[in-house]
Amino acid sequence: MTMKTEILTLLRESGDYISGQELCNRFQVSRTAVWKVMKQLQGEGYIIEAIRNKGYILKENPDVLSLSELKSRIHNCWAGREIYFHEETGSTNIDAKRLGEEGAPHGTVVVADQQNAGRGRRGRAWESPAGKDIYFTILLRPGFAPDKASGLTLVMALSVVQAIEKKCGLQAGIKWPNDVVVNGRKVCGILTEMTTETDYIEHVVTGVGINVNLEVMPEEIKNTATSLLLEGGRKIARAELLQEVLERFEVNYGAYAEALNMEPLLEEYDAHLVNRDRQVRILDPKGEWEGIAKGINRLGELIVDKGGGQLVEVYAGEVSVRGLYGYV
Amino acid sequence: MTMKTEILTLLRESGDYISGQELCNRFQVSRTAVWKVMKQLQGEGYIIEAIRNKGYILKENPDVLSLSELKSRIHNCWAGREIYFHEETGSTNIDAKRLGEEGAPHGTVVVADQQNAGRGRRGRAWESPAGKDIYFTILLRPGFAPDKASGLTLVMALSVVQAIEKKCGLQAGIKWPNDVVVNGRKVCGILTEMTTETDYIEHVVTGVGINVNLEVMPEEIKNTATSLLLEGGRKIARAELLQEVLERFEVNYGAYAEALNMEPLLEEYDAHLVNRDRQVRILDPKGEWEGIAKGINRLGELIVDKGGGQLVEVYAGEVSVRGLYGYV
Repeated sequence: MTMKTEILTLLRESGDYISGQELCNRFQVSRTAVWKVMKQLQGEGYIIEAIRNKGYILKENPDVLSLSELKSRIHNCWAGREIYFHEETGSTNIDAKRLGEEGAPHGTVVVADQQNAGRGRRGRAWESPAGKDIYFTILLRPGFAPDKASGLTLVMALSVVQAIEKKCGLQAGIKWPNDVVVNGRKVCGILTEMTTETDYIEHVVTGVGINVNLEVMPEEIKNTATSLLLEGGRKIARAELLQEVLERFEVNYGAYAEALNMEPLLEEYDAHLVNRDRQVRILDPKGEWEGIAKGINRLGELIVDKGGGQLVEVYAGEVSVRGLYGYV
Repeated sequence: MTMKTEILTLLRESGDYISGQELCNRFQVSRTAVWKVMKQLQGEGYIIEAIRNKGYILKENPDVLSLSELKSRIHNCWAGREIYFHEETGSTNIDAKRLGEEGAPHGTVVVADQQNAGRGRRGRAWESPAGKDIYFTILLRPGFAPDKASGLTLVMALSVVQAIEKKCGLQAGIKWPNDVVVNGRKVCGILTEMTTETDYIEHVVTGVGINVNLEVMPEEIKNTATSLLLEGGRKIARAELLQEVLERFEVNYGAYAEALNMEPLLEEYDAHLVNRDRQVRILDPKGEWEGIAKGINRLGELIVDKGGGQLVEVYAGEVSVRGLYGYV
């Protein structure tokens, strides 16, 4: 960590005044050097007060998304131990795949303030303004077989839901398999991609886009999508939310990779499944049909009651799921 | 195609004299322009004779590996319809994956004279001198599910064997799953990698390295590896060999993708399987064991007789196979 990142971490974690002299002693630098760092931080948007005889205090936690902010917050064992930040990039998934080719370690995270070539599943376009949302991708190098990788989308969906509930005080739900919704509208999409030697995983990238602080949703999507600001009525510090997502993900991934199935996460996943006990329409390539979603199984497949108790297990790759009544 | 590539194609396909006037008429250019193209081709190594009143003739098919040479030869429906050529590159698989991300079509081929970061399976290093071998990768966008992609290594191995037999007059064999051998020594390695949305193939790259014209094998590998020149005693035109591989691959891939299994290719594959009816040692992560290889099944798995008629189907991802007696 740079001195700036360390000072930021100290200010945030103390929540109180820290004397300039203490910082000088700690980093073995002059008072002027400390003062310069404070000026830099103020320039980036941090509200730092300096009071004679008391020192410096971080008065407010603004929505700053920067490498220093992220590094000063994320201290997991592996999820985010290496972080790359871009003001703007084509797609964090593509960036992470390239880092994967170059040998970047398990848990490397690429964060962007804005994506100009973002994609949803099957190459669908995804809206991406500046300064409002979070786009990030985590690079993973699991030891398990390729057929287990599809569960990582579910593991991430659960982690995002947990983080939103904790940090925004909103009730969030999962629309199987890869959307997170609040009050019936989408706030987050997840796209997992994998590179293999066909039978051996080289790396997996799980990309996440979260609608955080957009004040007005574009007309064409406002019936189906929303932002955390619109639902909760207050601005969210994106780095703080991302920190929470990565902390949850590290724990949830550990449970999944050990069990090699969704068993340890199943109960909590199903509790957040907005499709549960609702009618869903399955857009199977062989034809559409309807049923009542019952929950997921250990493989992460959606269990759907076709009627008369006939249960069908639906694999994410094969179908789209659409709610019959409204969006979910 | 450029005029140069077209003239090269005409000279090769006629095998006879083509008058300068005929070429002038065809391309609507001056005699000087035609003469300049001939000079360029001669500069690249083609032996072109010009005889007054008869015209130009391509006397000899030299071993030229260039974009013009490749484009003048490869006229498949899709396998090699787009070709990229590098004198030197890190890895044609990495190049092809990037082209895949950028939307390059099914069948795009990347060819290199030399690789400086070539890899075999599980990241093993692979020797790569200049001007001697062929390194190429084909980008594929199959419509089938990810679990069918491992068969593409077998489909390519068969295509390489067929091409070597036709163009070099050598008997070639397959060491399951991904090596081609001549007289018991390796002449070709194949590495298939895949990028998926976990349950849906975005693209597959199948990379091939063939030891063609190396006169002396490095000491440390000469017991296990050889070149087509060393085995056949004559220099091989690499572009001609590659043309044949791609023609075979287009046909074999079509059969595989239609059947969705190895059934239509199984008999010919097994006929070339050097492990067949020989003792093999299976390096299973759970422990080594020995048996007699019997052939492959429709899924491309190796059927091994453990003794007493107990047949075990061995999946490429799980094991390495080593011959007990010598290399194969």
